[in-house]
Amino acid sequence: MLQLYIGNKNYSSWSMRPWVLLRQAGIAFEEVSVRFDSFDAGSQFKRQLQAVSPAGKVPVLVDGDTAIWDSLAIAEYLAETYPDKQLWPQDKAARARARSVTAEMHSGFAALRSHCGMNIEARLPEVGAILWRDQAGVRADVQRLVDMWGELLAQHGGPMLFGQFTIADAFYAPVCMRLATYALPVPQPIADYVRRVQQLPGVKAWIDGALAERDFLDFEEPYRIRRA
Amino acid sequence: MLQLYIGNKNYSSWSMRPWVLLRQAGIAFEEVSVRFDSFDAGSQFKRQLQAVSPAGKVPVLVDGDTAIWDSLAIAEYLAETYPDKQLWPQDKAARARARSVTAEMHSGFAALRSHCGMNIEARLPEVGAILWRDQAGVRADVQRLVDMWGELLAQHGGPMLFGQFTIADAFYAPVCMRLATYALPVPQPIADYVRRVQQLPGVKAWIDGALAERDFLDFEEPYRIRRA
Ligand SMILES: N[C@@H](CCC(=O)N[C@@H](CS)C(=O)NCC(=O)O)C(=O)O
Ligand SMILES: N[C@@H](CCC(=O)N[C@@H](CS)C(=O)NCC(=O)O)C(=O)O
Repeated sequence: MLQLYIGNKNYSSWSMRPWVLLRQAGIAFEEVSVRFDSFDAGSQFKRQLQAVSPAGKVPVLVDGDTAIWDSLAIAEYLAETYPDKQLWPQDKAARARARSVTAEMHSGFAALRSHCGMNIEARLPEVGAILWRDQAGVRADVQRLVDMWGELLAQHGGPMLFGQFTIADAFYAPVCMRLATYALPVPQPIADYVRRVQQLPGVKAWIDGALAERDFLDFEEPYRIRRA
Repeated sequence: MLQLYIGNKNYSSWSMRPWVLLRQAGIAFEEVSVRFDSFDAGSQFKRQLQAVSPAGKVPVLVDGDTAIWDSLAIAEYLAETYPDKQLWPQDKAARARARSVTAEMHSGFAALRSHCGMNIEARLPEVGAILWRDQAGVRADVQRLVDMWGELLAQHGGPMLFGQFTIADAFYAPVCMRLATYALPVPQPIADYVRRVQQLPGVKAWIDGALAERDFLDFEEPYRIRRA
């Protein structure tokens, strides 16, 4: 059976992607939870991961003797192992575009990612409003999302970015959570897509798991000293 | 005919990857050079890219009506379009590992990337020595490279990371250029791999192109005020 090593569901945006992908695709897997304590060399987190991943990060997918240690590599591995699940769009041009937006997420959106850490259980509209006022990079990242999602939803007619659910939606699911937590302003069609993503069974299951955790990790939440 | 839009060969590490990949694989393409002036909205660079890419970055591969605008998405597109070129390893487990290290590069090595911008024509050992002394993140990134490359070279016997040249080598080629420019200290087997990469015909051709450029872009080189 496939094993997926993940971090805290509340915080780990990278872990969320392959987990949601596996769930939405109906691929059976065993979840191995590696809670964050710290990312120091001696941390319990690093020691637990050492056995499976040379990169020392989550997520890691283990399939027999093979460990795949990056969320995008995991997605490609699943796409080629389960072709019947159609994890990428079937049309070649649409697939090229889906890979473009997915890889753009993988290496980009640095401002949004660093300023608006994923924090599913929190509601932080005031923090979001200050970031929106002060951080041009956050505004530019959101503008790019609005343009990209708007165009894809118009072109494919929704409900997901490429019509049916694909890897691209799994990769942008953590971004949807950030937009919600920080209440960043987006046009209605974009807000509607965010809501549809939050209602996917695989995303709902992840959110439930995040809400059930009670950890407060101050290094993940520099903007407050305790949970509300 | 395929068209590849690229930035300055001296500076654009993202552009270098698919260009080297196409050259090494012997896939014919037309190069479209979009020289950097600035990355401001009104720049010539942005205006020229607008027509082909919604993300406004290089590289972009154009195949007829399809534009693919991220280096990793381009690599996957080429791998599936030219299966006979064996751009990924043929063995499934090796391919999973190659995708892991490639995607790890795509989203990681932030310290090395931000402190040691690619600058092929320059020799900057003093800048490198100061970074090496002061930047723990740079040291950690290089240690990860040394571990990863060392393990893969030992496992597959070289000369490239997975035996023959693959996408993984194309993605680490700009890193090889950085290690050389900043003279960062690495063990002999790693230095040997760097030299072998620099001697690949596709990499040599890119380096020649970089040396032929005479641009000096101060925003790419905060550590000096002119070319030596
Ligand atoms: N490129 C990786 C990034 C994974 C990543 O950065 N994961 C974080 C948790 S969300 C982590 O494990 N951090 C530990 C560290 O940085 O030491 C992927 O896509 O899987
Ligand atoms: N994830 C992209 C990144 C491309 C990228 O950042 N390219 C730089 C040049 S090396 C660029 O075009 N920058 C323009 C900008 O940031 O506005 C890829 O892999 O292609």
